[in-house]
Amino acid sequence: MSDYNFGIAIHGGAGTIEKSLMTDSKKAEYKQALQIAIDAGYKALHADLSATKAVETAVAALEDSPLFNAGKGAVFNSIGQHEMDASIMDGKTLEAGAIAAVRNVKNPIFLANLVRQHSDHILMIGDGALEFGKKYKVQIEEDSYFYTEQRYEQWQKIKGSDSFQLDHTAEKTEKKYLGTVGAVALDKYGNIAAATSTGGMTNKKFGRIGDSPIIGVGNYANNKTCAISCTGSGEYLMKAVTAYDISCLMEYKGLSLQQAAEYSIHDKLTKLGGDGGIVGIDQKGNIAMVFNCDGMYRASRNQSQTEIKIYK
Amino acid sequence: MSDYNFGIAIHGGAGTIEKSLMTDSKKAEYKQALQIAIDAGYKALHADLSATKAVETAVAALEDSPLFNAGKGAVFNSIGQHEMDASIMDGKTLEAGAIAAVRNVKNPIFLANLVRQHSDHILMIGDGALEFGKKYKVQIEEDSYFYTEQRYEQWQKIKGSDSFQLDHTAEKTEKKYLGTVGAVALDKYGNIAAATSTGGMTNKKFGRIGDSPIIGVGNYANNKTCAISCTGSGEYLMKAVTAYDISCLMEYKGLSLQQAAEYSIHDKLTKLGGDGGIVGIDQKGNIAMVFNCDGMYRASRNQSQTEIKIYK
Repeated sequence: MSDYNFGIAIHGGAGTIEKSLMTDSKKAEYKQALQIAIDAGYKALHADLSATKAVETAVAALEDSPLFNAGKGAVFNSIGQHEMDASIMDGKTLEAGAIAAVRNVKNPIFLANLVRQHSDHILMIGDGALEFGKKYKVQIEEDSYFYTEQRYEQWQKIKGSDSFQLDHTAEKTEKKYLGTVGAVALDKYGNIAAATSTGGMTNKKFGRIGDSPIIGVGNYANNKTCAISCTGSGEYLMKAVTAYDISCLMEYKGLSLQQAAEYSIHDKLTKLGGDGGIVGIDQKGNIAMVFNCDGMYRASRNQSQTEIKIYK
Repeated sequence: MSDYNFGIAIHGGAGTIEKSLMTDSKKAEYKQALQIAIDAGYKALHADLSATKAVETAVAALEDSPLFNAGKGAVFNSIGQHEMDASIMDGKTLEAGAIAAVRNVKNPIFLANLVRQHSDHILMIGDGALEFGKKYKVQIEEDSYFYTEQRYEQWQKIKGSDSFQLDHTAEKTEKKYLGTVGAVALDKYGNIAAATSTGGMTNKKFGRIGDSPIIGVGNYANNKTCAISCTGSGEYLMKAVTAYDISCLMEYKGLSLQQAAEYSIHDKLTKLGGDGGIVGIDQKGNIAMVFNCDGMYRASRNQSQTEIKIYK
């Protein structure tokens, strides 16, 4: 038996399909995908694996689902490619790995974890990151693997225009799909970790990078405070340095994880005009799932309960 | 007359030429380059321009000097190119712009500022960032413009090896050159800003991105707390989220700028094993220049004094 109240929380993006457009069968599909991912991560923890392994496993399961904007199901950029970002951080050592604007990697979170484990760097981008991944035999897929009809249609609607689209956009259509995925976990050894993965914005151009691969912004973990994975309007999260802000509110102001997350999301991010949410965990196994929009695909599981939710 | 004690501080990188290898004439060259940059920034403030304009101006002057690893004088990457990163943030609005892995832009800080002013994004990379810059007529230079003999020699010594080199490396040779440049300023209107620019590491590969273009890590500004520009071992600064850490120590723990910078550099960064330093300013015009290595090329100027220093 572990003295630690090990557990895991995941998200599949803040900003969900508008409630009125959500069907029962769609809802069931999402919940099933979340169930698969939370169970995969929990199983890793239960089998005495590390928090880092658990978040990697859960995020990979979300990447493998075409429902979420990460891995298979990633959105199209302005020239019809899938450029993906991911990050992972170990709260025990503060070791972190991240990749951005990478194509053709089946599970971007695996590549981020390879950067964490096998390089002196934290953030690698583009072809360089891909070349690094190939040295470590990361699984490569053809462009066609990443194709999904829903993402293609989203892209067709705004292709050629100067506009781009966040997954959480408030437009009243089904385009409002899903988002970034992420996971946080506490393992049996008292260590926490966070992982985040995304396909970014539909029709994005100019090599835009959002919050997800930025340590301290879209992802952060430190045993002393918390592990956080963010989702939402990336540029606002970047201004607010949201993940590390929550950590600092705990470390320097003595707030609990829940208090810190609520302040950072409902006060700071909301005042800046940003939409988004987080999942977080601390060393005591407290889990926070906080967001300032209609919904956030999310799930949590520990020894006493499993929770899977979409709306507030 | 302004009620604000306007002023500016700049750095040309932590980790300097070892004192025993520094000649009087070299020292004079560096001091002259710092003088030109600090005067250019101060002149902007004195002429009622914004803090954002002042830091942009000072950093551009440092980029134009071949002595520093930014703009002209940027180091060579593993394939002999100059890939540069820069960032800028306005403490009044929290608007930020950053670019990474960009080639052929004479003044990367101008491109970062264009991103801040003319896009909804914060961070753009590579060819996309360059394409964006061309739309806004950013000045382009041939590769040959960025060539300097000292950087070429640094690269030749480690080219083909798997090693890379931070500017601040502890090797006992002249290779230990210079680094990232940056500036922070308070203007007559009570607004602060920060700017940072770098060529990264000699022989860097895999599209490695360091701390300089990351808002909250290498650069941060918020009128409520401070403006910070960092220099040093990028990966350690990234783990420590140094710039925003200093801001949080002020906001959440009530420390002064000097106390916060000392704690973040001497306690947190040093314990992680990182080398580096910061220049910072707050809304009262207090200036901090803190580092945990032998030296940091630095200067400050306000209405009452000018200071230009290299070693402790």
